[in-house]
Amino acid sequence: MSPKNRSSRGGPRGAPDRRRDPRPGGRPRPQALSELGGDQVEGRRAVLELLSVGRRTVRRIMIAEDQDPSPQLDRIEELAGRMRVPVETVPRARLDAQARTEAPQGVLALARPLEPVSLEDLTRPGRHGTSPFLLVAAGITDPRNLGALLRSAECAGVTGVVLPRHRSARLSPTVTKTAAGAIEHLLFAVAGGVPAALSELRELGVWSIGLAGEAEQSLYDLPLGEGPVALVVGSEEKGLAPLVRRRCDAVAAIPQHGTLPSLNVGVAGAVACFEVARQRATAATQRT
Amino acid sequence: MSPKNRSSRGGPRGAPDRRRDPRPGGRPRPQALSELGGDQVEGRRAVLELLSVGRRTVRRIMIAEDQDPSPQLDRIEELAGRMRVPVETVPRARLDAQARTEAPQGVLALARPLEPVSLEDLTRPGRHGTSPFLLVAAGITDPRNLGALLRSAECAGVTGVVLPRHRSARLSPTVTKTAAGAIEHLLFAVAGGVPAALSELRELGVWSIGLAGEAEQSLYDLPLGEGPVALVVGSEEKGLAPLVRRRCDAVAAIPQHGTLPSLNVGVAGAVACFEVARQRATAATQRT
Repeated sequence: MSPKNRSSRGGPRGAPDRRRDPRPGGRPRPQALSELGGDQVEGRRAVLELLSVGRRTVRRIMIAEDQDPSPQLDRIEELAGRMRVPVETVPRARLDAQARTEAPQGVLALARPLEPVSLEDLTRPGRHGTSPFLLVAAGITDPRNLGALLRSAECAGVTGVVLPRHRSARLSPTVTKTAAGAIEHLLFAVAGGVPAALSELRELGVWSIGLAGEAEQSLYDLPLGEGPVALVVGSEEKGLAPLVRRRCDAVAAIPQHGTLPSLNVGVAGAVACFEVARQRATAATQRT
Repeated sequence: MSPKNRSSRGGPRGAPDRRRDPRPGGRPRPQALSELGGDQVEGRRAVLELLSVGRRTVRRIMIAEDQDPSPQLDRIEELAGRMRVPVETVPRARLDAQARTEAPQGVLALARPLEPVSLEDLTRPGRHGTSPFLLVAAGITDPRNLGALLRSAECAGVTGVVLPRHRSARLSPTVTKTAAGAIEHLLFAVAGGVPAALSELRELGVWSIGLAGEAEQSLYDLPLGEGPVALVVGSEEKGLAPLVRRRCDAVAAIPQHGTLPSLNVGVAGAVACFEVARQRATAATQRT
């Protein structure tokens, strides 16, 4: 399958199930509505980013009554008022009953779920013409790990994320809250199979680097500063699946200097994202 | 106060309360027993490291009955048997009642608390004569943040940690579990005041770098590869306190490339620790 056979949006991909990609900005397909999630957003920072980015419709906000004054809550009410989003003040018990995280910090929003985009959409140059910088979260199942990684990745300049359709956390309230608003800034593609997605990314000109603690290659010795890059992070328990590993263009480790066997997967991903960012900044300085 | 006035262990320090430092390896002072904590260890990895490092006495291990077979649990029982630590198999409900974390993974150990050491002990060269690499956790109050940071720091090669006596998480079961055994490998000093501890570290030849998101200086432009270094990480909400900031030898930021206002404190600390590790490894390669 050549990339030339595909239209720029949607069209068949290498994923085995051959379903059509959902379209960014297009009409929502009913069956795709909950594929990514993100419809229930909890926690002050996450709700604040949801409103201030304004990428998707917010249906309703619930705020628990009897809370201490908070500039963040004030700002949420102000933005909601400006955007004509209904704000309900409810007893704490009602908010907690609706909440799906442990500590919703007294605020919760119901919004249109995030719509996945195609891999091609993910690889378009970013703001200021920057090369695509992608993260493939290949099987992270703990919502706190995934949420923390999304937050760090966004801070490092990641613009797009690939999540596998199966055996991965979705953008649940816990992911959304832990990501502290990062999901509002990122594009997400959902892949039927990660190996096929990596093949497609290669055709699209993206160099994929799998993170594997036991790899002999050091991440720091790879040239990560130029061109489109995708970091591939495996599951908490098993790391990269064998076929995923084989499809990566390079497999590298973050050199360890302690005695513990391994970093947390979210932290390893964050350190790797910031190494890409560091090399990109150095390369940009050298060009000027 | 000059460092020469102090004996190598204990003695008064710059901390305002002028209490004597607890001594490593010395007889435990009753009032110091719970100063650091670490006496209740939960979770499979944390208990496994507790037993395999063997730095402190383990009084008793509780394992929940009716668990699926697990190589980690087998190894815990094997090590406990070899070390003559009593292992009790108890109903899940009894273990959960004793547990202080959400998910103790069916195992819990009661051990001698960790004893703090003096700042001078913290600054002795490490294994293989490596320069001291310290972390000052100056006011991290969320136990999961502190635990995650300790785990990452140990993986990056940090050998010693300074915790303030007040307004900081202690080595609670949640910290201990999240740190996944890191506390068994690290030395800890408890400081009455962080500014005084930084002054003392300077006298001991340690260069302290405060992390502050808004600093103009980039962490990547600092020479971190040689000599004793202490990274200073502030609190989740307020960052570095003004006096702490002034006492740091340098204040630097990890350059951000996204739109979110800031990294999680544990992740920022981890990225900074791995930058020190990267520069040290590069410097070591250049020396050979």
